[in-house]
Amino acid sequence: MAPESVRNALKSDPKHAVRATRTAGQRTRSRLLDEASRLFKDQGLNAVSIADIAAAADAFPSQITYYFRTKEALFVEAACRDVLHVARMAEDAAHSAPAPDDYTRALVDSVMRTDAVGFFVEAMTLTRRRPDLAPLIERTVERLHLEGSRAYAGEMQTRGWRSRRDPATSARKFWTIAVGVTLEGHAMGRSSDDLVAEMLRLLETQADAGVPSRTSLRLIDRDDRLTKSEPDSEDTP
Amino acid sequence: MAPESVRNALKSDPKHAVRATRTAGQRTRSRLLDEASRLFKDQGLNAVSIADIAAAADAFPSQITYYFRTKEALFVEAACRDVLHVARMAEDAAHSAPAPDDYTRALVDSVMRTDAVGFFVEAMTLTRRRPDLAPLIERTVERLHLEGSRAYAGEMQTRGWRSRRDPATSARKFWTIAVGVTLEGHAMGRSSDDLVAEMLRLLETQADAGVPSRTSLRLIDRDDRLTKSEPDSEDTP
Repeated sequence: MAPESVRNALKSDPKHAVRATRTAGQRTRSRLLDEASRLFKDQGLNAVSIADIAAAADAFPSQITYYFRTKEALFVEAACRDVLHVARMAEDAAHSAPAPDDYTRALVDSVMRTDAVGFFVEAMTLTRRRPDLAPLIERTVERLHLEGSRAYAGEMQTRGWRSRRDPATSARKFWTIAVGVTLEGHAMGRSSDDLVAEMLRLLETQADAGVPSRTSLRLIDRDDRLTKSEPDSEDTP
Repeated sequence: MAPESVRNALKSDPKHAVRATRTAGQRTRSRLLDEASRLFKDQGLNAVSIADIAAAADAFPSQITYYFRTKEALFVEAACRDVLHVARMAEDAAHSAPAPDDYTRALVDSVMRTDAVGFFVEAMTLTRRRPDLAPLIERTVERLHLEGSRAYAGEMQTRGWRSRRDPATSARKFWTIAVGVTLEGHAMGRSSDDLVAEMLRLLETQADAGVPSRTSLRLIDRDDRLTKSEPDSEDTP
């Protein structure tokens, strides 16, 4: 399919041809990643060949080596794309949560009930013995931390919630615990309900709504407000 | 070597023979685990054969299949034994720490500066596609949590420190973060200094010495003491 569109594109003017080729290339690349992700998650790295992925994506094996060089690089890139996608879905799902605990639960539910973290864990394991693929993992982990931190800080500010730790640490902690819980849980054949419960247990309370319920905490809260001179309008979330 | 000692043992009385055989068997088993651990950590699962391990341990390949059935089962058992050993070493190293933060740092240093957690991470990844090996991982994780929780609770009580969360959650959090940080760090080629720093950042303060330093916290502390009627003798750690 891709070679066909490339040939058609080359018939028209050169500028348009370059643009059309690039678009067709992006479509092929994206389709290869989709099919690779599906096959790898179903059957694992070793059971899937480049020929299998090419056949599933209606492409030539040479296109896989052209775009990704090796099966392992395609595996890692597909896993990175999946986990970034799930992270964005999780932020959307948590956006309408009424209180901090619901927000955390919505994030954890969205992330831990997919197979994206498990796939990413396998990609990280593979990369340990393939340092040439480390930059892909590194960029992905940085983006997870950065985007997670931004989304979290934004929610705290918009809602008037008080985070118990800095947003950067919150984001790193979220993803490291997600990775650890997934690896342990999958090794022991745990259900996704168990993974969600374990992650919520280890994350603990992330933030508080405007007014904490315990008297002793409210006293500290008042003191902090005096020094920071924050408005009192955040009493109800 | 083992067959020789077995033959000698069989010459004497039956009871003694059984005992001698069992001891020789345990020694062989232990030597196989030692050599397997060393070779697997150096070269990885795929690069090491049963014949390599047998040669290094001065044993027959058939002894490996007799004691462990498969190379993968030997890999997982060696990794489980390593991480349990490192956990005990870490508890010993942290035992003399003067304050809660030093205690946490000593535990993290001892655990993250060995390759035991990395080895255990690989064993857990392998087990995901080998559910027959899951019980070994499961028992090891349970022991890490149980022994960690007991040691932590014991230290808190002996020193008069106040843990910020229940010992069971502290122990689970410690190991899950150790696993997550190790997997991420190894995938990105991080140094053990980086792993230690990241783990300390994510663990946060685990416990407080007798008297917390911040006034607001001391107020809460006093309230708690009134309700629990604890002695005041723990003022100095």
